[in-house]
Amino acid sequence: MLKDFESKKRQDSAQVSEETKELQMQLLGQQQLLMQAKIPVIVMIEGWAAAGKGSLIKELISELDPRFYHVVSPKVLHEYEERQPFLCQYMQAIPVNGKVTFYDSGWMENVVRKYLRHEITKEDYRNRIREVNEVERQLRDSGYMIIKIFLHIEKRKQYERLYRLTEDSRTEWRVDREDLMQHKEYKRFMEAYDDFIEKTGGTIGWHILDGSHNKIAVRDALKLLVQKIDIAVKEGRYEGQPIEEEFPLKEMPKLSEVDLSQTMDDEEYKKELKKLQTKLSELHNVIYRKKIPVILCYEGWDAAGKGGNIRRVTYALDPRGFDVHPIASPLPHELNRQYLWRFWTKLPRTGHVCIFDRTWYGRVMVERLEGFCTENEWKRAYNEINEFERMLTEWGAVVLKFWIHIDKDVQLERFNHREQTPEKQWKITEEDWRNREKWDEYEIAVDELLQKTSTKNAPWYIIESNDKKYARIKTLRIIVKALEKACEKHFKQMME
Amino acid sequence: MLKDFESKKRQDSAQVSEETKELQMQLLGQQQLLMQAKIPVIVMIEGWAAAGKGSLIKELISELDPRFYHVVSPKVLHEYEERQPFLCQYMQAIPVNGKVTFYDSGWMENVVRKYLRHEITKEDYRNRIREVNEVERQLRDSGYMIIKIFLHIEKRKQYERLYRLTEDSRTEWRVDREDLMQHKEYKRFMEAYDDFIEKTGGTIGWHILDGSHNKIAVRDALKLLVQKIDIAVKEGRYEGQPIEEEFPLKEMPKLSEVDLSQTMDDEEYKKELKKLQTKLSELHNVIYRKKIPVILCYEGWDAAGKGGNIRRVTYALDPRGFDVHPIASPLPHELNRQYLWRFWTKLPRTGHVCIFDRTWYGRVMVERLEGFCTENEWKRAYNEINEFERMLTEWGAVVLKFWIHIDKDVQLERFNHREQTPEKQWKITEEDWRNREKWDEYEIAVDELLQKTSTKNAPWYIIESNDKKYARIKTLRIIVKALEKACEKHFKQMME
Repeated sequence: MLKDFESKKRQDSAQVSEETKELQMQLLGQQQLLMQAKIPVIVMIEGWAAAGKGSLIKELISELDPRFYHVVSPKVLHEYEERQPFLCQYMQAIPVNGKVTFYDSGWMENVVRKYLRHEITKEDYRNRIREVNEVERQLRDSGYMIIKIFLHIEKRKQYERLYRLTEDSRTEWRVDREDLMQHKEYKRFMEAYDDFIEKTGGTIGWHILDGSHNKIAVRDALKLLVQKIDIAVKEGRYEGQPIEEEFPLKEMPKLSEVDLSQTMDDEEYKKELKKLQTKLSELHNVIYRKKIPVILCYEGWDAAGKGGNIRRVTYALDPRGFDVHPIASPLPHELNRQYLWRFWTKLPRTGHVCIFDRTWYGRVMVERLEGFCTENEWKRAYNEINEFERMLTEWGAVVLKFWIHIDKDVQLERFNHREQTPEKQWKITEEDWRNREKWDEYEIAVDELLQKTSTKNAPWYIIESNDKKYARIKTLRIIVKALEKACEKHFKQMME
Repeated sequence: MLKDFESKKRQDSAQVSEETKELQMQLLGQQQLLMQAKIPVIVMIEGWAAAGKGSLIKELISELDPRFYHVVSPKVLHEYEERQPFLCQYMQAIPVNGKVTFYDSGWMENVVRKYLRHEITKEDYRNRIREVNEVERQLRDSGYMIIKIFLHIEKRKQYERLYRLTEDSRTEWRVDREDLMQHKEYKRFMEAYDDFIEKTGGTIGWHILDGSHNKIAVRDALKLLVQKIDIAVKEGRYEGQPIEEEFPLKEMPKLSEVDLSQTMDDEEYKKELKKLQTKLSELHNVIYRKKIPVILCYEGWDAAGKGGNIRRVTYALDPRGFDVHPIASPLPHELNRQYLWRFWTKLPRTGHVCIFDRTWYGRVMVERLEGFCTENEWKRAYNEINEFERMLTEWGAVVLKFWIHIDKDVQLERFNHREQTPEKQWKITEEDWRNREKWDEYEIAVDELLQKTSTKNAPWYIIESNDKKYARIKTLRIIVKALEKACEKHFKQMME
């Protein structure tokens, strides 16, 4: 660990420079190999203020083709300013296959700093460490190579560097209050960094480099990268095995057991619709003010009535406070990243409602059945999705998932009706008919996902939609109830 | 104008509702027609606080398929918080072909509010109005339909509504200080809105609707949309003609007149490189603090040495403060929007350096020569680009454009060298050879763009690069000089 860490190496500076130059050229040569092997690489440079993270990155990239890498410097906002899950800005920056993202401070700095600032509780801290481990494993399992470097300097060295920076009017602005605070509280930070390193080294190991001799740190980091990439290219993309973690689950019926005979007459429908929309509209104000994010997920059979159902919900919402994301097949730049990436980029801000018209469950339905992903991939997805959704609810989001359900006869009726109605013909395609032929296979897949992913925190609701009116009212009721509960709970949590 | 505007229509409420419902269904029916005609639609809803913009949008979208539209509610930040050109957030939200973006307040509110807050000068105000007109014309010319609605209410009505909102604890939070301020200064705002409407109605006309009767406003807005879309679908996508506006230009030689014999020996190169990089590094600190954005554009022949040149620049920069954007052929979602959109989404934040490795000039080079756009389109582009770059420099950016120049023999040498060097083979493709065959055509296109777009505010520099060392030093010198000048000018402007 850090405390035991000592680097006393002295080397002839000229020799280090020469080795560095050579390693930079080797890294340059590896660009193409990484591209061919389609391995995306994440390089996290964490460490003390003034440890030389910026200059290290500068040397790492100095010979590389700009098309090949990206450098991000995520800000650690104050928790109350953060409008999305803390991992969001990091996940949004992950590279496409064959390219590299360098993080000038990563999620470690975020978690540790907020914890030391007392902006998150001990429990939040533990959860976030778990989330970091989960995300790192997920990325690794889907082929990402992650290199985590901690650039270490001793307190005395940090003092010297901060002093030098502050004395020079050109660099003074680079030292902020938080850096000085870190120096004053060096010991507290040391313990916190140590704790984080200890708890997050299990899946992807840490590399602690001595930042007190810049040139040596650069050479060592380059050596590390070159070696790691060399091995990765030889071994090829890693593919993780499915794992099964226990999540508290809600019991779900099989689709075939669902009674689809419910109906609702027009009069009751209109009355209820108005009542629920008014209520939802009021609740939208409350969640906006309380900054509770809401994520509504719609899945269901083709022609089950997802669109109309969604519209009855959005009609009650202020257009400034919601987004609907229709999810189609992934685009090339989406396919070239971990499959959840395109959802990480669409998460709502606090206080906003975000509706997914089809979701990440495509992985365990269409992608599974059409062979768009490997068996390992879709089997891994149940657990990955449960983790993703737990992260969302730990962030504070209300996550509700609706399976809009009809039977095969009703689908056929609606397909035929669509084909016969000119304004509706665009809604029905060859693909819908092809999917219909695979009804039984889909049913197996859906039953499986309902069993495996209806967690207590992000439950599934089967919405009987042979009668669309009944379905809409049921959905609205579930949403209203969940939001009421969330508003209450929010108050209780604030007071704890 | 607003002062003369009066709407006294009274209609039977039931009839209005019925008409509204019918119009909503018509709009729904138009979705597919717009998709087929590939016409993107921008609906700007501007108007007074509490005029009912939100509820109007809610009714406009109530029957639409969420896949078909997007609602954005851009915030009017304070000018000092705004890290990108004020038009950026609006331009980033423009729809793809066949879809609609509704703006819950558009660029009008932005310009007027900042002007009334005294955050921008009279000159800025005039410039921004000009920029709004330019952008609207550019969008129209490239096929966008723009509908601009101003929702008007009288002072007394605004008072009633603000009062009602503030009295109700559930809606109180919706009224902010700025709304109350607007009410107090109703007359000043009236004049400012009027002035803006008068000065921006030339290209795309305004539609002033009476917001005092919500239902009628909704019906009228729907009627307007349905009519406009109907006409647009019948007439098909509009394509604008090229126009030529006079810009103050820097005189440029023809490529064939450029003396490419300059060289630099190794010793001088190393000395100069070090000196200039140190200087640039210091200047990077200054522009960061002064929040001056810098945009460096690289174009040039294949194998001219763009990559190496860029690396010598970035090596002097702090990786936290710059981005390199390599520009390849546009992706489908980029092709489906106005061609400058993909650059609007890549502009730097204030104080940052952004380097484009190839640029928007692709329009008047490869897209022109390969027939990827129509003649009207590339001929229009000279003026559109000049306007775009003027907007960038009026925002405060330093814009420098480099044509990295070599002759045909040197290119052949370098191509051959690349083919014979295993690590460099990836840099040379069939396409490079094909482009080489079109050298003469390219030369005509480049000569033309250099003549037409080397504006005083965003000049072109021809960088003789037969000797790469000479080229790098020349580029660095130009950048250093321009940044020094910008830092000085910045101070002077602050003091004016």
